[in-house]
Amino acid sequence: MKWETYLAENQSGFVNELIEFLRIPSVSALSEHDGDVSRASEWVASRLRSAGLEGVEILPTGGHPVVTGHHLHAPGKPTILIYGHFDTQPVDPIDLWTDPPFEPKVKDGRIYARGASDDKGNMFIPILAIESLLRSEGSLPVNVKFFLEGQEEIGSPQIGEFLSKERSRFSCDLVLSADGCQWSEDRPCLFLGLKGLTEVQIDVQGPNRDLHSGGFGGAIQNPIHSLAHLLSTLHGEDGRVTVDGFYDRVKPVSEEERERIRALPYQEDEFLSETGVKEVFGEVGYSTHERLMVRPTLEVNGIWGGFQGDGTKTVLPAKAHAKISCRLVADQDPDEIAELLARHVERHQLPGAVATLRRMVGTATPYVMPFEHPGNQAASEVLTELYGHPPYAIKVGGTIPVTSLFLSELNAYTVCFAFGLMDENHHSPDEFFRLSSFARGQTAYCKVLKRLARCSTEELQVQTHGV
Amino acid sequence: MKWETYLAENQSGFVNELIEFLRIPSVSALSEHDGDVSRASEWVASRLRSAGLEGVEILPTGGHPVVTGHHLHAPGKPTILIYGHFDTQPVDPIDLWTDPPFEPKVKDGRIYARGASDDKGNMFIPILAIESLLRSEGSLPVNVKFFLEGQEEIGSPQIGEFLSKERSRFSCDLVLSADGCQWSEDRPCLFLGLKGLTEVQIDVQGPNRDLHSGGFGGAIQNPIHSLAHLLSTLHGEDGRVTVDGFYDRVKPVSEEERERIRALPYQEDEFLSETGVKEVFGEVGYSTHERLMVRPTLEVNGIWGGFQGDGTKTVLPAKAHAKISCRLVADQDPDEIAELLARHVERHQLPGAVATLRRMVGTATPYVMPFEHPGNQAASEVLTELYGHPPYAIKVGGTIPVTSLFLSELNAYTVCFAFGLMDENHHSPDEFFRLSSFARGQTAYCKVLKRLARCSTEELQVQTHGV
Repeated sequence: MKWETYLAENQSGFVNELIEFLRIPSVSALSEHDGDVSRASEWVASRLRSAGLEGVEILPTGGHPVVTGHHLHAPGKPTILIYGHFDTQPVDPIDLWTDPPFEPKVKDGRIYARGASDDKGNMFIPILAIESLLRSEGSLPVNVKFFLEGQEEIGSPQIGEFLSKERSRFSCDLVLSADGCQWSEDRPCLFLGLKGLTEVQIDVQGPNRDLHSGGFGGAIQNPIHSLAHLLSTLHGEDGRVTVDGFYDRVKPVSEEERERIRALPYQEDEFLSETGVKEVFGEVGYSTHERLMVRPTLEVNGIWGGFQGDGTKTVLPAKAHAKISCRLVADQDPDEIAELLARHVERHQLPGAVATLRRMVGTATPYVMPFEHPGNQAASEVLTELYGHPPYAIKVGGTIPVTSLFLSELNAYTVCFAFGLMDENHHSPDEFFRLSSFARGQTAYCKVLKRLARCSTEELQVQTHGV
Repeated sequence: MKWETYLAENQSGFVNELIEFLRIPSVSALSEHDGDVSRASEWVASRLRSAGLEGVEILPTGGHPVVTGHHLHAPGKPTILIYGHFDTQPVDPIDLWTDPPFEPKVKDGRIYARGASDDKGNMFIPILAIESLLRSEGSLPVNVKFFLEGQEEIGSPQIGEFLSKERSRFSCDLVLSADGCQWSEDRPCLFLGLKGLTEVQIDVQGPNRDLHSGGFGGAIQNPIHSLAHLLSTLHGEDGRVTVDGFYDRVKPVSEEERERIRALPYQEDEFLSETGVKEVFGEVGYSTHERLMVRPTLEVNGIWGGFQGDGTKTVLPAKAHAKISCRLVADQDPDEIAELLARHVERHQLPGAVATLRRMVGTATPYVMPFEHPGNQAASEVLTELYGHPPYAIKVGGTIPVTSLFLSELNAYTVCFAFGLMDENHHSPDEFFRLSSFARGQTAYCKVLKRLARCSTEELQVQTHGV
């Protein structure tokens, strides 16, 4: 049997398995789901074994686990590490979901559930590709290792230390990431860069308890006023981040890069109707794609304080809070950005209430990989054949923290292509994944592994130039 | 039996009745407690009847009801309307309460429960005073009517229309309010002014759903940024409200009034340790007491938007909201202030998200009454006798919406003294009422009613001067 036939004959069974996988509410951010993340790791381990992988293990990290497995029977051929994650984002606002987020529904060729596209559907693809090659051909064209983690959605806090201890276990020539996306249904894409990440929370302490706004209002600082003031000092009217030093390490966008970005299709009316806003807004002097792809950002992800119920309650509240994430570009350092933010909060807080900034777990160094790398070229060739169009090679605003960790700890680049689509509501209600993408991804992975077998280990490895 | 003896002999029974009253969770702001507000009105009606009042009725208002009753057997004597309210504030933050808010506990001469001081304990006082006079003397020194409402804590939204239809039922020469407070345990006070109130909510709509902050951050307006900016434009660094026209109708504080305020005891260290803040903050050029008593204020009472859970969620949220209340001083108009706020929001909102302002139910016109009024003089004499010190006559930052409604609809002033204390956590967790104040209040009410019997109806009525 050919691997193509194996894939075709088993597609509906694969969908049923994906449904089973998606039923596990493996939300990594919420401790009440710790057991579910663990159940998801067991599901993955068991599925790696039945696909024919060896040495399958669930490895403790101090936080959510990593699942590994390997197939190392292609002497002289490159060793490819395949990356994906089995944890998901939280589900709120839960009331905006059409169906419960962990009761997957297949409708019109799409599967709806939290994690369907980001990343369970995508990470299941290489497992199925490898199963199809082993069942049809009895061997793999390259050596393969898996690195499937359960903490991507909280910024992979334990993965850095874990990887530095497990370098030899995961040594490889190249990484393929099953977390990523396509450009459109008929156009693939390759990520040449992913933004870094710094996450913080600001807590403002006002009075020692919620006070009557008539009894105390106007005479002591309201922590919500102080927080609103602080947040309002983070951006200028020109959309630029006004934290001192924020852009110090950011290199100007090269004309070459601007040219590449201008060549990408962009329909402002589609962007507006997709997001539901009346106009775009961002840093002056940059296009929407430039803002998203190559400029650092600072977004407040949540805010709360005082009375939030129906009706009114005339309190001057004791506390107010905000969560903030910064997406960083090449050469920005997440630790340094956190310090700049802390200094900003210290300097700009209003008198009478105390604002403090604390670091949250998510952190990542920005990641960049050259388009000319043979790994990108191999993927590009296969994707071009499969879609009839070459992939757009882009930098994206998202973050996959392990990409820079694989570079620093394993000295390996990560080729990043996958089969999700921007409109599939990642991190939002009604997340879904196209089943056509699910099937096409399996074919693509088989072909990319075969194509990589024609590369030498040396050419895939990171070249250390100079000195 | 003398009325003093009746009160003394029945005090522990009264406390048990108060406990029963406080068990009813009559939170007027939350619709799930509508039935409880109704139960509280029945408790009050039944207690008026057993105290010996006639014509007791629960009157529908379109919202929470009003309970009335009367005793009109003192021909030629003034008719006094007694005001109080049987609804309470909500209880959140519930986790800061030592005991459940609707399971009253008596500890060290204090009774702890939501509504203990504001206002159930205080509004029960005149009922008990009247019962003691009727049981001991068989009659009352003046004519009495009751006006006990169930919607004070939400700003008495239906009371204006209700009162204008029921003018003759509640016609009177003077109102006594059982909602108010003492200055300290050994110093009474009289309210000469109460602030008005305008309440609004700002809703900011950004994208049509919560978006991935990596996929969209930096390219569209974040509604939290827009809201924070809007809120930061509401006050200047000098603590003044910067809404155009906000102060236009506010008269300068007279030197006489400043003098009276300076004469009030004020210990900044006590104010700081009571509120738990390190420094006071407010409008430049005014003392803490002036800010609280005679200057209008704008406070954000609550704010929310985006992710508020543990950990992090990298969203660019769809919406953000804030609740705001303004406390107004003489000549400011709550409707006009709401319009000024709406105009401010329209003018100062950032591009790319849509901010709208809607009026919330709480509204009240500022209330002022001259100290020289014979009603204030009568109360002052009795309180001076009882405490050994004359009352401080002050304006306060709080709002009792009916005071200005009684003035406009019934053409009657409201003398405002009561027995709560500032430190009794009105609107906060662990609200309590001193049982010594509960008992002293009953004595004071008996004496004030007797003292008012020496006033003529004419001198108590609002004098219409001029034209």
